[in-house]
Amino acid sequence: MSQTVNHQILLKDRPVGEPAEYHFELVERPLPELTDNQVLRRTAFLSLDPYMRGRMSAMKSYAAPVDLGAVMIGGTVSQVTQSKNSAFAPGDWVLGYDGWQEYGLSDGSDLTKLPDSPWPHSYALGVLGMPGMTAYVAMLDIGKPRPGETVVISAASGAVGSVAGQIAKIKGCRVIGLAGSDAKCEYVTKDLGFDACINYKTQHVLRSLRKAAPDGIDIYFDNVGGPILDTVLRLIRPHARIALVGMISQYNATELPPGPNLVPLLFNRALMQGMIVNDHADRRDAFLKDVAAWLGEDKIKTREHIVEGLQNAPKAFIGLFHGENFGKLLVKVS
Amino acid sequence: MSQTVNHQILLKDRPVGEPAEYHFELVERPLPELTDNQVLRRTAFLSLDPYMRGRMSAMKSYAAPVDLGAVMIGGTVSQVTQSKNSAFAPGDWVLGYDGWQEYGLSDGSDLTKLPDSPWPHSYALGVLGMPGMTAYVAMLDIGKPRPGETVVISAASGAVGSVAGQIAKIKGCRVIGLAGSDAKCEYVTKDLGFDACINYKTQHVLRSLRKAAPDGIDIYFDNVGGPILDTVLRLIRPHARIALVGMISQYNATELPPGPNLVPLLFNRALMQGMIVNDHADRRDAFLKDVAAWLGEDKIKTREHIVEGLQNAPKAFIGLFHGENFGKLLVKVS
Repeated sequence: MSQTVNHQILLKDRPVGEPAEYHFELVERPLPELTDNQVLRRTAFLSLDPYMRGRMSAMKSYAAPVDLGAVMIGGTVSQVTQSKNSAFAPGDWVLGYDGWQEYGLSDGSDLTKLPDSPWPHSYALGVLGMPGMTAYVAMLDIGKPRPGETVVISAASGAVGSVAGQIAKIKGCRVIGLAGSDAKCEYVTKDLGFDACINYKTQHVLRSLRKAAPDGIDIYFDNVGGPILDTVLRLIRPHARIALVGMISQYNATELPPGPNLVPLLFNRALMQGMIVNDHADRRDAFLKDVAAWLGEDKIKTREHIVEGLQNAPKAFIGLFHGENFGKLLVKVS
Repeated sequence: MSQTVNHQILLKDRPVGEPAEYHFELVERPLPELTDNQVLRRTAFLSLDPYMRGRMSAMKSYAAPVDLGAVMIGGTVSQVTQSKNSAFAPGDWVLGYDGWQEYGLSDGSDLTKLPDSPWPHSYALGVLGMPGMTAYVAMLDIGKPRPGETVVISAASGAVGSVAGQIAKIKGCRVIGLAGSDAKCEYVTKDLGFDACINYKTQHVLRSLRKAAPDGIDIYFDNVGGPILDTVLRLIRPHARIALVGMISQYNATELPPGPNLVPLLFNRALMQGMIVNDHADRRDAFLKDVAAWLGEDKIKTREHIVEGLQNAPKAFIGLFHGENFGKLLVKVS
């Protein structure tokens, strides 16, 4: 075995707010000998992704934090150098989760062999990997793009946003990107084929979006959260879909944002949906059948708050906003 | 024809903030003679509902505003007094949308005859009407309650909340109400059978909810918006569902709330959903097949930002939060 040392980057301290270099530590460790069934591979590419910020905190999110002193986690593309496992041979390219280090060693159950492909091996960490799949699932399964709809993508030149926007284009949508430099915006429109791009660092986002999407926004694919999300919410169209896929603007926050904090929606993969009953005439028969039955079985009880006389309607209505009614508010007119 | 006058309440002025009695005007108008095919009915009950506040404003929401000087809109249960329409006879009970007035007159196409029922006619405006159906559709179709789940309902003693909570009980959930008085809370637990109720005017909502729902909240059925929604968001469980059905706390607002304004989600019946790719292994094959094909057809392009050397990973990672990468960020380790 020619390699005898493995450089690793450990989590040295937990950041409060922005991460800095002193939260990490580069160490040199001996490489252990392979035991039965093990596979040793050398990292070719390590993926760096915003979600890693969450793992640096002790706070529980949707995954366990990295322990202090442990190797930072991360997706890797590696090449097998030694193997005592019949499923892997030296030279094999594998996708793994070896983290920030030069070598990975395991029984191979955490590895996926990369199929032959015309693309660079590194694509397995990007467009053909976790970021690409995030874009694919969130755009198709939450966004449900339909031809002619207007789609907005934040972090549009990034690993996830660039794929999400191109999928929306493939589905026949008008796609507007948001990115943080003119060069990125040029890439997004010229190379990726988005219909428009707003540089959120130099342009007024609300005004620019109003101009680029004068009829409003059907789908917002959000990688950033924060004030851009607040702005987009002002411009959504009826039956809009908003996929919360990342909230990079809030990952370094040291206090709760003002108003509703939407980070828990992302981390809990939760759904929030507005509902107006007028849309649902198709449910009327089921509703009347079920609720009448439940009333009859005394499983549903109700209470009415009846005000006498049409002239008292304004006062009673105003009281609704102060909780003065107790039960369904009705005016007995005659 | 014995009746000759019709008392009406008109929208006199548009409120800014809270509505007051002087925004309304009570007038007496002559009742017109019936023409061919018309039905005259006397209002028995007028429903008063929070959504009417939106119609008093000139701002477009999901329905047109009431014109200044027009009769205030509203659901009504009425009894036919005269009819030149063969489909209706004097004495018939009808559900309509005649608004704040003593009599309604039309060709009958806007009326629904009330079926024979053991319940009071007024129920057609409450538990068996729009509020009950709102509760039914939003709880079942958005909330999707499963036995054993924890459900929170705001405005729990109200026309919509009371039905929503009882449906969740029927579906085997643990149900916690929020209401604005001890009497309402007692009604919610003793009469309606909710498992707990929090008086949000006298109790600390976050602490009380943490105690009543120590394992978190699966479904939030929201009638109020505002700070209570903000608080519930802090306590949601993985895969939670939040039905936005009303936002009464925000209907009189004269300025945008801090942070994201969620009223447009309600008015636009929009969907917002958090997504973490780890949940979607079942989509991997479709993703790889489609995206590889689109790459091959040059319909998807990608760009990598490659940093050389493991020792440079911390600096590159920190740069992610400042948009310093341009494309998928990777570290070339070897």
